[in-house]
Amino acid sequence: MKLLYYITFLTLSLRFDLSFCQSSPSLILTEQGVQKVKSHLGQVPIFDNTLEKVKSEVNQAIQVGIKVPIPKDLAGGYTHEQHKSNFFLLQKAGVLFQITGDETYANYIKEMLFVYKEMYPTIDRHPETRSYARGKLFWQCLNDANWLVYASQAYDCIYGWLSPEERDQLNKDLFRPMADFLSVETPQFFNRIHNHSTWGNAAVGMIGLVINDEELVKRALYGLDKQVAGDIIKDNDGGLIELPGQEEAGFLAQINHAFSPDGYYTEGPYYQRYAIYPFLIFAQALQNKRPESQIFEYRDGVLLKGVSALLNLTNSSGAFFPINDCQKGMSYLSRELVTAVSLAYHYGEQNPALLSIIEKQNRVPLNDTGIHSALAIVQGISKPFVQKSIQLRDGAEGDEGALGILRASANDETEEQFSAVMKYAKHGMGHGHFDKLSFSYYRNSREILQDYGSARWVNVEQKDGGGYLKENRSWAKQTVAHNTVVINQTSQFKANTSEADKHHGTPFFFDSSNEKIQVMSAMDTNSYPGIKLHRTMALIKSKAFEYPILLDLFQVDADSPQEVVELPFYYSGQVMQTNFDYKMSASLNSIGENYGYQHLWKEALGKPKDSVMKFNWLLDNQFYTLTSAVDVKDEMIFGRIGANDPHFNLRRDPVFIIRKKDINKVLFASIVEAHGAYSPITELAQNTYSNVKAIKVLYDEKGYSVVQFSDNQQRKWVFALANQNNSKTAKHHLQTDQLDLEWEGVYVLTNEFLEP
Amino acid sequence: MKLLYYITFLTLSLRFDLSFCQSSPSLILTEQGVQKVKSHLGQVPIFDNTLEKVKSEVNQAIQVGIKVPIPKDLAGGYTHEQHKSNFFLLQKAGVLFQITGDETYANYIKEMLFVYKEMYPTIDRHPETRSYARGKLFWQCLNDANWLVYASQAYDCIYGWLSPEERDQLNKDLFRPMADFLSVETPQFFNRIHNHSTWGNAAVGMIGLVINDEELVKRALYGLDKQVAGDIIKDNDGGLIELPGQEEAGFLAQINHAFSPDGYYTEGPYYQRYAIYPFLIFAQALQNKRPESQIFEYRDGVLLKGVSALLNLTNSSGAFFPINDCQKGMSYLSRELVTAVSLAYHYGEQNPALLSIIEKQNRVPLNDTGIHSALAIVQGISKPFVQKSIQLRDGAEGDEGALGILRASANDETEEQFSAVMKYAKHGMGHGHFDKLSFSYYRNSREILQDYGSARWVNVEQKDGGGYLKENRSWAKQTVAHNTVVINQTSQFKANTSEADKHHGTPFFFDSSNEKIQVMSAMDTNSYPGIKLHRTMALIKSKAFEYPILLDLFQVDADSPQEVVELPFYYSGQVMQTNFDYKMSASLNSIGENYGYQHLWKEALGKPKDSVMKFNWLLDNQFYTLTSAVDVKDEMIFGRIGANDPHFNLRRDPVFIIRKKDINKVLFASIVEAHGAYSPITELAQNTYSNVKAIKVLYDEKGYSVVQFSDNQQRKWVFALANQNNSKTAKHHLQTDQLDLEWEGVYVLTNEFLEP
Repeated sequence: MKLLYYITFLTLSLRFDLSFCQSSPSLILTEQGVQKVKSHLGQVPIFDNTLEKVKSEVNQAIQVGIKVPIPKDLAGGYTHEQHKSNFFLLQKAGVLFQITGDETYANYIKEMLFVYKEMYPTIDRHPETRSYARGKLFWQCLNDANWLVYASQAYDCIYGWLSPEERDQLNKDLFRPMADFLSVETPQFFNRIHNHSTWGNAAVGMIGLVINDEELVKRALYGLDKQVAGDIIKDNDGGLIELPGQEEAGFLAQINHAFSPDGYYTEGPYYQRYAIYPFLIFAQALQNKRPESQIFEYRDGVLLKGVSALLNLTNSSGAFFPINDCQKGMSYLSRELVTAVSLAYHYGEQNPALLSIIEKQNRVPLNDTGIHSALAIVQGISKPFVQKSIQLRDGAEGDEGALGILRASANDETEEQFSAVMKYAKHGMGHGHFDKLSFSYYRNSREILQDYGSARWVNVEQKDGGGYLKENRSWAKQTVAHNTVVINQTSQFKANTSEADKHHGTPFFFDSSNEKIQVMSAMDTNSYPGIKLHRTMALIKSKAFEYPILLDLFQVDADSPQEVVELPFYYSGQVMQTNFDYKMSASLNSIGENYGYQHLWKEALGKPKDSVMKFNWLLDNQFYTLTSAVDVKDEMIFGRIGANDPHFNLRRDPVFIIRKKDINKVLFASIVEAHGAYSPITELAQNTYSNVKAIKVLYDEKGYSVVQFSDNQQRKWVFALANQNNSKTAKHHLQTDQLDLEWEGVYVLTNEFLEP
Repeated sequence: MKLLYYITFLTLSLRFDLSFCQSSPSLILTEQGVQKVKSHLGQVPIFDNTLEKVKSEVNQAIQVGIKVPIPKDLAGGYTHEQHKSNFFLLQKAGVLFQITGDETYANYIKEMLFVYKEMYPTIDRHPETRSYARGKLFWQCLNDANWLVYASQAYDCIYGWLSPEERDQLNKDLFRPMADFLSVETPQFFNRIHNHSTWGNAAVGMIGLVINDEELVKRALYGLDKQVAGDIIKDNDGGLIELPGQEEAGFLAQINHAFSPDGYYTEGPYYQRYAIYPFLIFAQALQNKRPESQIFEYRDGVLLKGVSALLNLTNSSGAFFPINDCQKGMSYLSRELVTAVSLAYHYGEQNPALLSIIEKQNRVPLNDTGIHSALAIVQGISKPFVQKSIQLRDGAEGDEGALGILRASANDETEEQFSAVMKYAKHGMGHGHFDKLSFSYYRNSREILQDYGSARWVNVEQKDGGGYLKENRSWAKQTVAHNTVVINQTSQFKANTSEADKHHGTPFFFDSSNEKIQVMSAMDTNSYPGIKLHRTMALIKSKAFEYPILLDLFQVDADSPQEVVELPFYYSGQVMQTNFDYKMSASLNSIGENYGYQHLWKEALGKPKDSVMKFNWLLDNQFYTLTSAVDVKDEMIFGRIGANDPHFNLRRDPVFIIRKKDINKVLFASIVEAHGAYSPITELAQNTYSNVKAIKVLYDEKGYSVVQFSDNQQRKWVFALANQNNSKTAKHHLQTDQLDLEWEGVYVLTNEFLEP
């Protein structure tokens, strides 16, 4: 096993290096790095500006003085924010000491650490009891680990400068106890396969590297032998403490389990962004202190692939797609990605496209990687970073579903980009949403069809201490909060996380090689017993349409008739027009009682007039139309989020739901189309109407599905899909009374076929 | 009378000039202007770029060919948009012919005009019958007048180039009939005091100047003798065709009536922007053809004051405050203001601050004024345009109410600007809203407390042909749609426009001279019989608060107890926290049945816990808090727009209402406070809580009102107002058991007074 090899290798390597006695930094900053920085100061604008900002920030803090309050508050509260601020300041002061040589910074670190040293032995676990793993400085160990990851770096920067006695005191009374507290004393925190534990592992490992404590380093890399106490089974988010069949723990196990071979992290990009910092910073420390570990080559370089995956999991302004629990707005401008991108540049293949992202970040880590990339930018070798259509496989072996992203530029003249993101990956553990085969659709950074994200304002104390809100579970995670089919108004896996974690979506087909039509297709046979779901999305560029159109085919195939099958579209914007009549509710009631439906007001109910349903809306002065093949028995519902929301924790966003009743097999066939524009200044409205005339299902059986759509100029297209054969070379011939189609591969799009 | 003097002067002047036979343009472009343009081409970027864009646009249109369809559609529909496009193209082609000398453009104009000449005599009034004054080319005369104002300019540019026979044909079959159609044949359109008629007057006058038809010019300047047919009393918006006591008509009468001495236009900035074009373009034509008219000095130069007023009626990005019927987003970047600002620069005092607006517009009119200002910009003399705190009086004599705008910058480091706009002007005729003493509050260009604007998407055909929606009357105009007191859930003047038009607000006090505290105060005694309303707003800058705070005192003084007195605040953003409990409605019903209340869902109902009510919300990652003095019997309502809105014509915006019951005298005392910030990237939340600790009413009698507020550091402020004496020098002494205050002038703000 490849894994075992690495472990042995690292174990051996640890034996030889622990006696090294440092006098200059060696954890993140190195002696060579410091020399390079010093010799280029004033010549590398991004580095110099970052340094100036950090200096000004730390100088100001030094003036204010050291504040180490007795821990009391939740996130957003004073003591929490103060301790958080302290660890960032410590790390920055360490860097400043090394770069400037000014002992003010070293003294500041020393003094603050000694205050912590005095307090730490006197405090028990945090008085706030809501965490499954309470910290000491903070309400949860996670934040204590954050503290230690940053403080270790500061400590490394002054380690050689401190007297041996000072080091001994700090090691004995602060760092070693803290490392033990986070590990052996809190195994339910340290020994998981989870981003919390990654922080714990990195914290313990990094302080171990600083103080040359081999036991701590080993503990960090391989976890505890100790079994987790049996009475703590789940964390606060419902995630399991111990994964089924979990056989390993520690940092290397995290790498083995957290990332797929494509660098995708099953919790989604928001948590990947959070987790990537301890992964990378501990890896950097290992690389510096244990270069023979070759940690950045571990598992085919999966850590750096993780950075690449993250950068592709963003909209055009760099904000992460809000897969699973994710607060919208988090982006590659975050401090974690500032560390990550320069690091990926330095330890990777010096990809010049990364430099353009660093230019947008407009700051670099003040270490070896930062000076390297800042110097490269000065050399003018930066190239634009192009976000690609990409499928990122999930699961440690890459065989547990995937996330698909299709992107198409609008045309040659503008830089507009349309992106469709479909999730057919694993559930995503405690932060996962019941959203298999859901998608979201972007125009540049604007959500046309949104994923709700999480119900949370991180660190905003007013909103329940900044933690997850009750509605995150009752609404945001539920299936109906997503753009995917809901069967009988019940969430996938009946909203059971453990069940959901056992299954993943099944990638069927992904092909982005043809610029004119890119296709992603995936199935799910587990979310609802006895029901097969198969969604295929095609992003099509044609001169017939102003912008790329998104063809969405959602097949539902159930063993038995289902009462209600609904497909929601969380459009953003203002309803302009429909081609059907609807009746506004005189008073509003929730659509249902459970699985998120209790949070949806039913604003209006419509019935189609014929077999083509059109819904036209306006967003940011641009028009959009959804055109769907419907049955006259179908219903269309205009809903709005916000029912049963006693503290206004939910946004009042709208939804449009297509409802089919008493069916066992159906194909939802829709086109999402951007068109036209409006200017409130010229008051000119252009292309306000859809150019899709009609869409209809020509054929839908086990073997094949065929839809036809046409435009206002009576041009017709036919899209045919082989439902069960994803071979790219298989030959198909489908002949019926109405059809005679031959093609090779999974699908065909023809605009030559004319309906008889 | 000054007015008579001008009229006589103009009448005389007309006698002498009508025999002039032109061979080069003289209406808007002049021979000298053309020479100046030609000699500077390629040296004035803004002019050159505008010219290139116009050239490319017209060249493209020439390639497509001339399209003059038989009129059929409403605004947004094909024939409407085509005829609209045609008149813009005509005008532009005329300019291009003069500047480039290329006869392609002259031929294009000639050909198009001849197609119109063929069609015009064959068509009757437009088949769409909804207008009180149906046009021929368009559904309303207004648009026909637009056509003629622009086409006249094109005609002027080729007039000397055409053969006398061609001119005769066009004059006889097209222009003269059109001028008659718009005037003598449609007096209810031509003879009003209204923006519609201004277009009509300008159209008839401009074509008269081009073809040297004195009768038309006189008709334009002085209106028709003819009485308006008695059966048309109101226009489609409920505006009166004939104003009470109206004694004059025509263009000069429009100037007399439309503008206040401060250049304020009673319909509000959106319509002023629309109306200013015919005012200015006809004035420019008069100035060129009849310089002795001194039209830009008419009424102390009120036309140019109108431009200045418009520029001050904008938020920080130049969008007009949505007073009365106004589609939000219209701004000084509009084509009308492009004409207006360069014209004001040229004919006014060459104010260099206007140049900075022209730079933002990034285009100039392709005529004498445009080349003048573009050249000035090249000379680098542009200065920033600073929007000021200003009170703009309403009414022809300036004594019919006013609009007040207070502005304060956030601090010295940022360019943030807070602006409060209060309306205590005239109703505003057919486009007026029942919104006396309403206000809106801006942070830069962002609405913190919004005015709804109009319920309309201009020219968006899907939305009822782009015209005013039914909900404009049932919702947008109603009092409850505004941030002002509503008595017994009934609109001011019971929503009767004619009644409302008879009255205006009463300015009480306006002082923006003290940067630390700017105050505006106004009364209304007519909107509700037997009830005196008096609102005073103070924009206060203090180091105690992060940003300026807005103190809002709304006094209600009724002869008898009123059942329900409500003050709505149309906040934008997400509810964060309140200091009172509220109960969410399990199902939503409208708050009332009439006067706009039928459109408000009641989302939640709260009761204060003590005498200070706090409501904290988040908008664009910045925090806001409303702090109000309340009684425990009061109620707080969270509402949302959208009930009884069968076609989704309304935005689902939220409102917070403070409701007092069974009172005859009360003072609503509130502070609106901006504070703090949140970043979804750093996830840091700063200053999330209000720094206003409390507000209370210390005294409220006929003579004086006194409120006290304090901050979290226990600092106290007292604001005292003399309610009935607006002398700036009057001395006041108010002594009660609790108070002993002496001051001079209308108000005092002290932070030295300490409560006993």
